[in-house]
Amino acid sequence: MPNAEPHRLSAVEMAVRIEAGTLTAEAVVQSCLERIREREPVVRAWVHIAGDAALAAARAADRGSLMRGIPFGIKDIFDTADMPTGYGSPIYAGCRPSFTASAATLPCAAGGVLLGKTVTTEFANRHPGPTTNPHNPGFSPGGSSSGSAAAVADFMVPLAIGTQTGGSVIRPAAYCGVVGFKPSFNMFAPAGMHPNTETLDTIGLMARSVADIALFRAGMMAIPYEKPVMPERAPRLALCRTPHWDKATPDGKAVLEEAASRLRAVGAEIVEAELPNACGNVSEIQNRHSYFEAPRNHAPERYRHESLLSPALRHGRIEGGRKLSLEEFRAAWREAEQMRAAANDWAGGFDAILTLPAPGQAPQSLASTGDAIFNGLWTLLHMPCLTLPAGAGPDGLPVGVQLVGKRHADARLLDIGLWVESRLEARR
Amino acid sequence: MPNAEPHRLSAVEMAVRIEAGTLTAEAVVQSCLERIREREPVVRAWVHIAGDAALAAARAADRGSLMRGIPFGIKDIFDTADMPTGYGSPIYAGCRPSFTASAATLPCAAGGVLLGKTVTTEFANRHPGPTTNPHNPGFSPGGSSSGSAAAVADFMVPLAIGTQTGGSVIRPAAYCGVVGFKPSFNMFAPAGMHPNTETLDTIGLMARSVADIALFRAGMMAIPYEKPVMPERAPRLALCRTPHWDKATPDGKAVLEEAASRLRAVGAEIVEAELPNACGNVSEIQNRHSYFEAPRNHAPERYRHESLLSPALRHGRIEGGRKLSLEEFRAAWREAEQMRAAANDWAGGFDAILTLPAPGQAPQSLASTGDAIFNGLWTLLHMPCLTLPAGAGPDGLPVGVQLVGKRHADARLLDIGLWVESRLEARR
Repeated sequence: MPNAEPHRLSAVEMAVRIEAGTLTAEAVVQSCLERIREREPVVRAWVHIAGDAALAAARAADRGSLMRGIPFGIKDIFDTADMPTGYGSPIYAGCRPSFTASAATLPCAAGGVLLGKTVTTEFANRHPGPTTNPHNPGFSPGGSSSGSAAAVADFMVPLAIGTQTGGSVIRPAAYCGVVGFKPSFNMFAPAGMHPNTETLDTIGLMARSVADIALFRAGMMAIPYEKPVMPERAPRLALCRTPHWDKATPDGKAVLEEAASRLRAVGAEIVEAELPNACGNVSEIQNRHSYFEAPRNHAPERYRHESLLSPALRHGRIEGGRKLSLEEFRAAWREAEQMRAAANDWAGGFDAILTLPAPGQAPQSLASTGDAIFNGLWTLLHMPCLTLPAGAGPDGLPVGVQLVGKRHADARLLDIGLWVESRLEARR
Repeated sequence: MPNAEPHRLSAVEMAVRIEAGTLTAEAVVQSCLERIREREPVVRAWVHIAGDAALAAARAADRGSLMRGIPFGIKDIFDTADMPTGYGSPIYAGCRPSFTASAATLPCAAGGVLLGKTVTTEFANRHPGPTTNPHNPGFSPGGSSSGSAAAVADFMVPLAIGTQTGGSVIRPAAYCGVVGFKPSFNMFAPAGMHPNTETLDTIGLMARSVADIALFRAGMMAIPYEKPVMPERAPRLALCRTPHWDKATPDGKAVLEEAASRLRAVGAEIVEAELPNACGNVSEIQNRHSYFEAPRNHAPERYRHESLLSPALRHGRIEGGRKLSLEEFRAAWREAEQMRAAANDWAGGFDAILTLPAPGQAPQSLASTGDAIFNGLWTLLHMPCLTLPAGAGPDGLPVGVQLVGKRHADARLLDIGLWVESRLEARR
């Protein structure tokens, strides 16, 4: 994109031009702010925009740093001392923590510029915020990381941070047509993230390309940056329909099957494979973790501000949790450990698992962020997940495919993702 | 104790008397506040005392609730919206979060009264706060939950909450001569707890009896309360000296050996046993988790306020962490999983493990909170731990023994603890 407006560039391209001196970080931030000014009335992705503070940070950014002043957004489930933090709840609207989260700090320490806070559903649960799908404002952006997905998709910012307990990074990324990455469990530092279900909560990233995810990941983890490497030979992929195939819509099914065909046509080995038997009950086990842990993490709100909780949160997770005994929770925990071991052994037989990131295109409603049924299992299994745009639904909304890797083989998953992305892009 | 001052009663006895109407929660809180007024200039256990707010809460407490207005303290590593929260660091001195932690809320939801915030070392690491050992102010109370242990030991409050990443609950409890309980990993809700090393951080409890721990645990977990049950037959205990026996002082060794002899004399089966070979490197693996995770959780302070960090934190954990690669961290994680499985199988052969909670009596210095070498391994193994007073060191300071259970068998560990406590108390 030689003449593209700066806000449309990839983060990697921004970094190249900023280093070369053909673009400044300030011009990038300025361009993103203009894009936000233009589009925010429709997309409603942000709860706070840093504006002047971001421009000042961009002017001060170190051109020799990893992120070189590239702007990013962060979901409003993370604490920020210099921006309001509301967790998507009226209880905390306009609150200002004394503390700034590690996820907000580490990319800045790597030279990035925090552009603002993005909309989250209520406490990263189901009750939606105001964000719309940038491809069509009548459709949901997905959730709970609604604003992060929409902002990246709409070229408001090249990079954004979300969190996933069920499907809150991968699903909105797929619905908005961007690249979403949920790493292996516990890879990104949680300090300052409002917890939901501590055994599952996973910080994740959104960008418009796999290469941008890799750059952002290095900044987020404070590890040396290594570009993802295009695999020399075509990968061996497990086409996994999961036990929930009947919940997929015809467009979701069609995009996955077509992606598999296209990848096979260009050399990938596609093997139909299902999760091992030990994982038969995986989605129910995922739910049980949230039923026990989430009501206890939400005790502060339940105890002091119950009337300000949405009925969905009060009567869904919280009431469900009250019915789950400690014994049932422990049994779920033990079963999860066995499932993780079995799934990891199984995944070792493939370069990646190819599966759905969501049932199909985004719901035509802002009242629901869609179904996490194709996400919760992988979150429970603590395996790294990557969603890539792959096609379109009946209303022209994006539909993605999801790649899942072996636990802790996150960098390898990005390599495979690079290959799949390049092969799927060829016809998009 | 029919005529004891209220602050000297156990929590269970307070509950009995409050329910019977022979004592009010207000009188208990008043008595605790008087004790604090008298002793705090020497012990320095608190960073904030709720005072009038606690008295008002006690007057409003529900006599029919589980905790019936019984006061408790909480380590200042937990967020509280109505009390200052400083994490033991000058960076956050006097800060007031918008959020109150689950650990501060759940006991209140069960009818307890939050009396105040107790001293923590800097971010629950090693740099000490001002607290002294209530048995002798020239000695350390241990840490990082220094104020919680000292306040309970000094009869300022019957119950208090701490956190343990290495040995921060069990060690100070042992040094101060109280009962400390670190549950299995992830049993208490972490919302509002400032993280240190997310794979290890465990919320724990302090009290002056095992029965009080059981009561407090039910309140903290929002589970039905069941009194611990005295086992009918004497337990089978593994006497485990650990790979670190050479780090124990003569008084620590003597108290453990003598406790084993006394328990054997009253019927316990004592089997000398060491951790399985797979766990040979367990303390080093525990350290590696902190070396990777802690510097990333402390990134906000490192990035914005580095000069306000103690040299111990800056040059210890944080610099150490910078040297540990992601690959080394992942290898440590995988090894930890294997160790947990092996240790749990091994522990299943006994009713509990009998081991040291600390090298011996507290250090004669306020500059060091002592060595966590006898704690970090059990924290890494995610197994429940209970320390009980068992004897005294050369300067008359308390020395404890530690019981460790199978993961998730927390209630069973309290039952065994009740038996051991009663047999050790007989001669104290």
